[in-house]
Amino acid sequence: MGEFELIARYFSRPGLAQRYPQLQLGVGDDCALLQAPAGQQLAISTDTLVSGVHFFADVPPRSLGHKALAVNLSDLAAMGATPLGFTLALTLPQIDEPWLAEFAAGLHTLADTHACPLIGGDTTRGPLAIGVTVLGSVPPGAALRRSGAQLGDDIYISATAQDCVGQARAGLALRQGSLQLPAADAVYALQRLQAPTPRLALGLALRGLANSCMDVSDGLLGDLQHLLRASGVGAVLHAPRLWDMAASRPVLAALPAAQQLDFICHGGDDYELLFSAAPAQAAAIAQAAQQAGCLALRIGRIVPTAMGLQVQDAAGQVLPLTATGFTHF
Amino acid sequence: MGEFELIARYFSRPGLAQRYPQLQLGVGDDCALLQAPAGQQLAISTDTLVSGVHFFADVPPRSLGHKALAVNLSDLAAMGATPLGFTLALTLPQIDEPWLAEFAAGLHTLADTHACPLIGGDTTRGPLAIGVTVLGSVPPGAALRRSGAQLGDDIYISATAQDCVGQARAGLALRQGSLQLPAADAVYALQRLQAPTPRLALGLALRGLANSCMDVSDGLLGDLQHLLRASGVGAVLHAPRLWDMAASRPVLAALPAAQQLDFICHGGDDYELLFSAAPAQAAAIAQAAQQAGCLALRIGRIVPTAMGLQVQDAAGQVLPLTATGFTHF
Repeated sequence: MGEFELIARYFSRPGLAQRYPQLQLGVGDDCALLQAPAGQQLAISTDTLVSGVHFFADVPPRSLGHKALAVNLSDLAAMGATPLGFTLALTLPQIDEPWLAEFAAGLHTLADTHACPLIGGDTTRGPLAIGVTVLGSVPPGAALRRSGAQLGDDIYISATAQDCVGQARAGLALRQGSLQLPAADAVYALQRLQAPTPRLALGLALRGLANSCMDVSDGLLGDLQHLLRASGVGAVLHAPRLWDMAASRPVLAALPAAQQLDFICHGGDDYELLFSAAPAQAAAIAQAAQQAGCLALRIGRIVPTAMGLQVQDAAGQVLPLTATGFTHF
Repeated sequence: MGEFELIARYFSRPGLAQRYPQLQLGVGDDCALLQAPAGQQLAISTDTLVSGVHFFADVPPRSLGHKALAVNLSDLAAMGATPLGFTLALTLPQIDEPWLAEFAAGLHTLADTHACPLIGGDTTRGPLAIGVTVLGSVPPGAALRRSGAQLGDDIYISATAQDCVGQARAGLALRQGSLQLPAADAVYALQRLQAPTPRLALGLALRGLANSCMDVSDGLLGDLQHLLRASGVGAVLHAPRLWDMAASRPVLAALPAAQQLDFICHGGDDYELLFSAAPAQAAAIAQAAQQAGCLALRIGRIVPTAMGLQVQDAAGQVLPLTATGFTHF
């Protein structure tokens, strides 16, 4: 099978233009053509997953297809943008048809869920890597930015009754052999690691309510530090709120308190939304989250820059945690 | 140096938003924000260059930065689109500051030439690869597609007084040690291979004149075959026109006729525009090319599908060439 047959078999999907009015021209020409909604701004993000760096080479290909798009959709969610479409840059060591079929299934299923079709791309030979660039739209001025946090804002992290930050880190520890989990928890933790859920409905619902927002991909504290720097503020997180979150959710509940805090604060691959909003918006935030099918957990407060980023215990004592996030170098 | 310092040092450029009104938010948030021109369609293309596949690991990094963007701008040129901006997905085995400085210089210099700023991206550790996704705009209905070739159309290839398809192939043969060239020709052939010139002005000038267009990246015959299939037509190319082209241009002029034809027909990395237009447009095409600072060389004609793709000599005899283009698998 050649490159063009591969694209035709797994990545060109007939009928897309009928289903997606924004798509004027899809896979197969020099460029794809999109008609974005009139008057809207474009939101663009790109993320690459490299084998051995971002995922284990033996990860189920269906999960990998899902995750490659999910991590990019999560960036749209963090801006409050609506997906329009995505491009795929796929680098493969060889053609493995069963692998490709599963990969494509995971990719297209998530794409269909969020009306975000594959509009073009590139397939090359080389070490396994998946690059996705996603496009979305947002009304002018409505995008949620990292730089808008205000003194006194409440700090929230998204969750569901089951999901929260830190679980993916447990999945990674399990894969690395440094953590043992009961069978059900193990399945769940791997699911969180390998097939995260982008919080697109929540991002849309937070427009006009949140003052700042980003997604958590490299660890809660490290990512929060980026938001604080962009906004010129500091933050205090309340460890009891984080422990409460852990105590009522699978995977984390059974771990020692210190490990709970470590996984929650320094994990990664969470793809939950971290955002801030004025205290007066608390009820509206809770309602917006509920309508989006998630929860917005209040975990701290925006404070003056001079206070830096602190995690405090119930007595107000600062816990010895650092804001180290994941960095590739 | 960490990932974020690397981005700040080489890829975040202050003042971009002032220079480029389309850029609402650049590098540093979850997404970039662009305001595309009102009423226009978006053209999107993505291309990845992988070390050892698309380039030699020791290629000058300034050329590599240039080429990574150039091959994507060439796709915009082929659609008749105006550049808006691009994202960069950079996978690096390690941080090499002199290398990065040169790479960034090549990238940003070409970006500035075409008012196409870097708006966002992703830096990861892994085998050296450069993924670029470029965005452009084009009025509705004005995009040049592969599928519009009409029976009787003239077939053109872009060139300049110096440049033509096939020279980059000579540069590759030189690097591979299968070809010897005089010093000046060697420098020139490597320049064509390593630092191609996207024909953006020509693409814009061809709007409303050309019936079909694509860029030649994988070899003239192989790429023409894609255009013919998309349009449901065949083509006859005239070898004497190709030899005339070779005879008056550096690198190719001194080669044997058979090798000239091989390099021209089966080369790659040319990034010239291959297009078709009605014979009545010949004068307008010549003028458009001149205004764009290039030449449009007539090399053949669109014929019925049943004739396939032929290269004929002066006597009308079909030469034994195949339409094999470059494929990664």
